[in-house]
Amino acid sequence: MKILALAGGVGGAKLAHGLAQVLPPQDLTIVVNTGDDFEHFGLSISPDLDTVCYTLAGLANPQTGWGLAGESWTALEQAKQLGAPGWFNLGDRDLGTHLERTRRLRDGEALSAITADFCSAWGIGPQVLPMSDQPVRTMVRTADGRELAFQNYFVELRCEPQVRGFRFAGIEAAQPAPGLLEAAAAADLVVLCPSNPWVSIAPILGLPGLPAALAAKPVLAVSPIIGGQALKGPAAKMFSELGIAPSALAVAEYYGELLTGLVLDTLDADQQEALRELGIISLATASIMQDPADRARLAAEVLEFGQSLLTHA
Amino acid sequence: MKILALAGGVGGAKLAHGLAQVLPPQDLTIVVNTGDDFEHFGLSISPDLDTVCYTLAGLANPQTGWGLAGESWTALEQAKQLGAPGWFNLGDRDLGTHLERTRRLRDGEALSAITADFCSAWGIGPQVLPMSDQPVRTMVRTADGRELAFQNYFVELRCEPQVRGFRFAGIEAAQPAPGLLEAAAAADLVVLCPSNPWVSIAPILGLPGLPAALAAKPVLAVSPIIGGQALKGPAAKMFSELGIAPSALAVAEYYGELLTGLVLDTLDADQQEALRELGIISLATASIMQDPADRARLAAEVLEFGQSLLTHA
Repeated sequence: MKILALAGGVGGAKLAHGLAQVLPPQDLTIVVNTGDDFEHFGLSISPDLDTVCYTLAGLANPQTGWGLAGESWTALEQAKQLGAPGWFNLGDRDLGTHLERTRRLRDGEALSAITADFCSAWGIGPQVLPMSDQPVRTMVRTADGRELAFQNYFVELRCEPQVRGFRFAGIEAAQPAPGLLEAAAAADLVVLCPSNPWVSIAPILGLPGLPAALAAKPVLAVSPIIGGQALKGPAAKMFSELGIAPSALAVAEYYGELLTGLVLDTLDADQQEALRELGIISLATASIMQDPADRARLAAEVLEFGQSLLTHA
Repeated sequence: MKILALAGGVGGAKLAHGLAQVLPPQDLTIVVNTGDDFEHFGLSISPDLDTVCYTLAGLANPQTGWGLAGESWTALEQAKQLGAPGWFNLGDRDLGTHLERTRRLRDGEALSAITADFCSAWGIGPQVLPMSDQPVRTMVRTADGRELAFQNYFVELRCEPQVRGFRFAGIEAAQPAPGLLEAAAAADLVVLCPSNPWVSIAPILGLPGLPAALAAKPVLAVSPIIGGQALKGPAAKMFSELGIAPSALAVAEYYGELLTGLVLDTLDADQQEALRELGIISLATASIMQDPADRARLAAEVLEFGQSLLTHA
């Protein structure tokens, strides 16, 4: 069974790691949001791509979920002594990734080609694709009438501004990364990882040609909302600020026609009836991934559920 | 006595540090070559400026003369694991300087303003000026017909290519940094530090308006050539490859009309007669600076010699 997984940051990276543990590498393609990529200190930084790759490589910081384990902070500390903004954490090892990515991008290489080389250097088996080689930048419209670059909203302002909407700057001109439409066409099942629907999955689904490529496929989402809360990040806050009570059901409604099935937490099993009325088959299970074994267990359940969707279909 | 010192990298930084030890801060302006500045990994790097500032701040690595003491190399090691070129040493602490300089340059700030802030953060008393806020790039023409960016010649190729000439790209459009012409006008004495005449001092002297500003001033050089050798770097090799026997005398002839006096090493005292015939007053002394005390001692002798030039004049 060939799987195309769409992922954002920490939550998506964990399920992607689970899928990588239970699938042969050639059967898994992971496409990662680049809408929150940005330039900082002159460096090209791809936070979701790095989180997914570091997690798949077993290099991620287990406490934070992002960044590298055993990191040091010498460079940023020196920069801060010179008055540099310290709101975005740049570890020394992590900087090595940004330096080389930036060097190759400046040389005119494609992010997808650079990512493929980094993945092989890190011993990552499955194909990891940035969603596009063209820059797409998620902009957050706020209640006070500002439009913030995503990292300024997310990290610098700690998601405090009230959200009114989003814009994915550059999305019209962006093309799906080389191999993405082919991976979509070859996929037996599409998995929307438990990432933020608004700012992690929506940019990927906004790529020209991708919705059409997924329309005929069984698409299964794992809800990032558990008991009305997001385990991490502003997903629940965004639903509320956009006038929607955050719930697994709301996630299914957000994905709408695209969605075939939803995996939600046992905490939210009471929403399965309403999902059924929406025509969404669902699976309630323990969806919080505490450790790599949890990730593999949830991934196996997701694939088994997907398998059942295929036979239903 | 107000001093304007022209400096390049390690040798120039040592005498600049000596002058800073023996002069009141308000009486010393140090103008630093930016012709070997370059962009690497997307960062704006100013090697001579950093060497001078790190040396004045007492932060320089005493073994190498460049870079920071107690440096670590985590970021570059990580980048090299991803295939990055390792020919230019980028320490973690040093990276902090490049990150913040790059951030502010990208924000449209002037290198001279950034340098002034860095100097105050590092507790540096004298005024340190990059030679210009506009980019000037030293290009090295080689015997095999190439034109190499300076850092590629100097660091990557370890000065191996035979030199045929130099070009300071952008010099026509470059303006002396704000305050430089004023410091030149106010100077009682100009000191050409023991830096490479061809690639450290020449770019500064090539700035529009600077030769005119220095023409009426007593200008004293400290020879970077001792016993026919350069203590550090390719100065002697460059003289030879350009068909000139490297010597203190050759340094004086290189500076020509501009020069009033030359400080040379006691090893080269036999050249004082020929210098006198050239109309160059000279002082022979121990000019190798082993430690900060040597720097202060040589600086004091240079100033005393300069004082005598003033009374002669």
